[in-house]
Amino acid sequence: MADIAGISAEQAHREQALVEEVVASFERCQDDRLRVVLQALTRHLHAFLREVRLTEEEWNAAIAFLTEAGHITTDTRQEFVLLSDVLGASMQVVGMNNPEVGDATEATVFGPFFVADAPEIPLGGDMSFGAAGEPCLIEGTVTGTDGRPIPHARIEVWEADEDGFYDVQYTDGRLAARAHLFSDADGSYRFWGLFPTPYPIPHDGPVGRMLQATGRSPMRASHLHFMVTAPGCRTLVTHIFVRGDEQLAIGDSVFGVKESLIKEFVHSAAGTPTPDGRDVGGREWSRARFDIVLPPGEGGGLHVSG
Amino acid sequence: MADIAGISAEQAHREQALVEEVVASFERCQDDRLRVVLQALTRHLHAFLREVRLTEEEWNAAIAFLTEAGHITTDTRQEFVLLSDVLGASMQVVGMNNPEVGDATEATVFGPFFVADAPEIPLGGDMSFGAAGEPCLIEGTVTGTDGRPIPHARIEVWEADEDGFYDVQYTDGRLAARAHLFSDADGSYRFWGLFPTPYPIPHDGPVGRMLQATGRSPMRASHLHFMVTAPGCRTLVTHIFVRGDEQLAIGDSVFGVKESLIKEFVHSAAGTPTPDGRDVGGREWSRARFDIVLPPGEGGGLHVSG
Repeated sequence: MADIAGISAEQAHREQALVEEVVASFERCQDDRLRVVLQALTRHLHAFLREVRLTEEEWNAAIAFLTEAGHITTDTRQEFVLLSDVLGASMQVVGMNNPEVGDATEATVFGPFFVADAPEIPLGGDMSFGAAGEPCLIEGTVTGTDGRPIPHARIEVWEADEDGFYDVQYTDGRLAARAHLFSDADGSYRFWGLFPTPYPIPHDGPVGRMLQATGRSPMRASHLHFMVTAPGCRTLVTHIFVRGDEQLAIGDSVFGVKESLIKEFVHSAAGTPTPDGRDVGGREWSRARFDIVLPPGEGGGLHVSG
Repeated sequence: MADIAGISAEQAHREQALVEEVVASFERCQDDRLRVVLQALTRHLHAFLREVRLTEEEWNAAIAFLTEAGHITTDTRQEFVLLSDVLGASMQVVGMNNPEVGDATEATVFGPFFVADAPEIPLGGDMSFGAAGEPCLIEGTVTGTDGRPIPHARIEVWEADEDGFYDVQYTDGRLAARAHLFSDADGSYRFWGLFPTPYPIPHDGPVGRMLQATGRSPMRASHLHFMVTAPGCRTLVTHIFVRGDEQLAIGDSVFGVKESLIKEFVHSAAGTPTPDGRDVGGREWSRARFDIVLPPGEGGGLHVSG
C-alpha cells in the first residue's frame, strides 16, 4: 500500500484494516473465480477511494450518477456500456480477450447498438433497408489464420445512418442499416451498406454530461460494425474505419480505433455504373474492401444479451 | 505497474498504452478536482481489469448487474447504496471524511432508508408511530468536543421495526419509526423508540444475489440510526448498536460497527414503571444511554438527496 500524503499512521491503519475486513468477508465464497474477482475489486476500489480521498459530496454524486444511468438504460439505450466505453474499459477487455494471433483481424468495441436477429440478406444484398446515406459496396473474404477460406461464416453488420442514428434510436421502431449474411463457398462476401459518417454517442444522459464536464467530445470516428462467427473460430467483434475521416485525428470517444481497421473507401461520381449492376439511383457511391481473418477458437465477443 | 503473469511484454505495452490514452483524454478538463478523480478512477479500474484478466462473459455479467441494480432502484430502494455498503466503500468514505477528533462520537454508514422531513416529536416523545417492537427509552446529551452542551441540536432518528422493516418498505405508504427532535437547553435529549433488532439488507436484488453467491450474510447488526446537526458542528451520521447482539459476532453486512457505538440496553420486566411515567401498556421495555459529542465543523454526512 503506497503512503497517502497527509494521513496519520493511525488513520491509514484504520483504512487498511477496513479493506482487509471486506476482503476477508469474501473468504467463504465457494466459487474461486468469483472470490478472486470480488477481492480484487474491493482492493482496487478502496485504493481509488483512498488515493483521491473521495468526499461525501462526491460519493453522493457518484450514487446519483449511477442511479441516473440505471434509469435511462432500456432495452435500446445502454448507459453502462457507454460508461465502460468512454472509460476505455470495454477496449481493455476486448484487447485482453482477443490478443493478436498471427494476422487475425483485430477486434474492437461491441457498442450498445447491436440487435440480435437482424434479417438475412443474400450476398450482394442491401443492408440499409432505406436508411439515409451514400450507397457503399463492402466486399472481402473470410479466411482462417491458416489462409483457408471459411465458407458460410455468419457476418452481422450494423451502422448509423448519415444523420448519425441507428435504427434503435428512431422513434418509429423500424429496422434499418443492420442485417446478417453468410460468406460464399469460397469465403468471399459482399453487401451494400452506407458510407460511414461520424456521430456522437448518445450524450443526453449522465455519460454525456461527464464528457462535457471534462471537455471530451462524444464523437465517434466513422465506422461500420461487424460481428463474424464460424465454427471452430474465435468470434470477431470489430469495426472498419474510414481513412481520411477527420474524427480519426480528433480522437474516438470510446478508444476503438486500430490502425489495421482503417480502410480505403473509394468514391465514384454520380452516374458511374456499379460493379454488380446495382441501381443506386444515379447517386454517388463508394466501395471498400475488408478481408477478415479469424483465429481458431470458440465463442467470445462482448455481447449484451438483449 | 506490477507485472502481470503470463502476459507478453507487447501485450502489456498495448494495455498500458490504452490506460495512458484514456488518462490523457481527461487532460483538457478545466475542473482540476474532476480531472484528478476521473484519471485516478481510470487507472484503478484498468488495474483491476488487467489484474483479474476480466473475461468478456464477466464484463457482460457486470453490465447486466449494474443494469438490474439501476432498474430496481427507486425513491425508496437504493441498490447502488447497498452495493457501496457491502463492498465497504461507504464505510471507507465515512472514515476518511470523519477522522477521529478528540472524543467526538464516531460516524458510520448512512444507509438507504433515511427520509427527509420526518415529523418532529417533543422531548420524551415516541418516534415509533405505531411500528411493532419493544418500547425503548433512549436518552443522552449533545455536547461539543469542548464539553459544552449544545442546545437545540437537530436529532434525526430512524430504525426498523421488530420484523426488520423500515416504513419505506411497507406497502401501505405509512410513516413509522422515524422522527426528529431537538436537544433541550442543557443539551439533553430523550425519546421513546423501539429496541433494535437484526434484519437483512434488502436482498431480493442483484446485491443480495452477490452476497448469497459469495456465502455472505445479508444481516445487519441491530441498530438505531442518528443524524445530528447543529450550527458550527460537523454533521454526525451514525448508529448505536446493542451490546450482546449475536449479529455483532457474526458480522455486519455493511461493516458499520465500531466498538464505541455499542451501547448497553437494559431491559425492564413487564409492569415495571417507566422513569417518565409513559404508559407502555404493561409490556417489557428497555432503556439505553447515548451521549453525543460533535466536533467543530460544517456540514458533511453521506446523504442521498431523495
